[in-house]
Amino acid sequence: MLTPARIAVFVSGGGTNLQALMDAQRAGTLHSGEIALVLSSSPEAYALERARKAGIPTAVCSRRELGSQESFEAAIQRALDAHGIQLIVLAGFLSILSGAFTARWPGRIVNVHPSLIPAFCGQGFYGLRVHEAALARGVKVTGATVHLVNEIPDGGPILLQKAVEVLPGDTPETLQRRVMEQAEWVLLPQAAEMLCQQIAELERSAP
Amino acid sequence: MLTPARIAVFVSGGGTNLQALMDAQRAGTLHSGEIALVLSSSPEAYALERARKAGIPTAVCSRRELGSQESFEAAIQRALDAHGIQLIVLAGFLSILSGAFTARWPGRIVNVHPSLIPAFCGQGFYGLRVHEAALARGVKVTGATVHLVNEIPDGGPILLQKAVEVLPGDTPETLQRRVMEQAEWVLLPQAAEMLCQQIAELERSAP
Repeated sequence: MLTPARIAVFVSGGGTNLQALMDAQRAGTLHSGEIALVLSSSPEAYALERARKAGIPTAVCSRRELGSQESFEAAIQRALDAHGIQLIVLAGFLSILSGAFTARWPGRIVNVHPSLIPAFCGQGFYGLRVHEAALARGVKVTGATVHLVNEIPDGGPILLQKAVEVLPGDTPETLQRRVMEQAEWVLLPQAAEMLCQQIAELERSAP
Repeated sequence: MLTPARIAVFVSGGGTNLQALMDAQRAGTLHSGEIALVLSSSPEAYALERARKAGIPTAVCSRRELGSQESFEAAIQRALDAHGIQLIVLAGFLSILSGAFTARWPGRIVNVHPSLIPAFCGQGFYGLRVHEAALARGVKVTGATVHLVNEIPDGGPILLQKAVEVLPGDTPETLQRRVMEQAEWVLLPQAAEMLCQQIAELERSAP
């Protein structure tokens, strides 16, 4: 039996992707890792409530309150160290992480983006804006991407992608919901399990 | 019974998309239009051979031989007029059509592009290069797009899109073939039928 890898889920809002990960852990499809910390950029995030109800430790690191990017990232790093975190899952985390931070976690930060990268990604494309842009261009197929995070916004290696149909009459909101249900909530637990398996295997083979 | 719309298929090479259109016409899935002309930018294109075997009139307009973009497009226009063409289908046509030309055929030129626009499209993205770029970025999902042609390269309104899975071990060639088989050859006849129905309806309702 391998020791489960310790996951931190970074959130900023409602936490529906966190919920998908918690559901996958309960269902056993995510079994090589356990959610050991939920870290929010905002004290108001409902995701914190979901974590507390599930008995998962929480931390709040607000960029604004911490004053500088350096103190913000130092606070995050302390929380990760305190909980022995091995994998970071960005699940709707709206604060920016610097190249200095991501370089300390090579291949250990994963993000879900609500489009088929390289379409509708990079600076300025987040949340509903992604779906607004997709509808404005009139695409018939969109989807979601899970990728490793490096110093380039949405530029890291792609792990998983899933296509989702755009339907006549879609609004940014209906499209966002369909992409979440059909792609994000499916792919993110799959990718987390995949990465946790790798981490657990590495741990076992380490001297 | 509506009069079938008259289609010109523009080609430059092997003509597999032309073949898909001819097959659809034979099968009756493309029944609101008939292929009335195959126009090639090269006298060597095997697509011309396919057309001749099927008894479809052909024309060759080579940008190089015609000297200027103006004479090139004037020659194309004469061929289209001579055959009473109502819809242009670009099926692997490698010559560029100017904004002046596309403006004379608003909503009447359709193109198939071997990616999910807006990914891997625009200047420099044609043929195998599209699939090389998709593999270089490591996407897991690609596809094809049928769109109307305007003055912006690959920038016209999208009509149809279909996703295609990228498989481990894919080369640009294997991926190109799968995108053709699963998406281009399916979408292009569908889009042609859709546009021909519109044209035939307009003709009927015209005074």
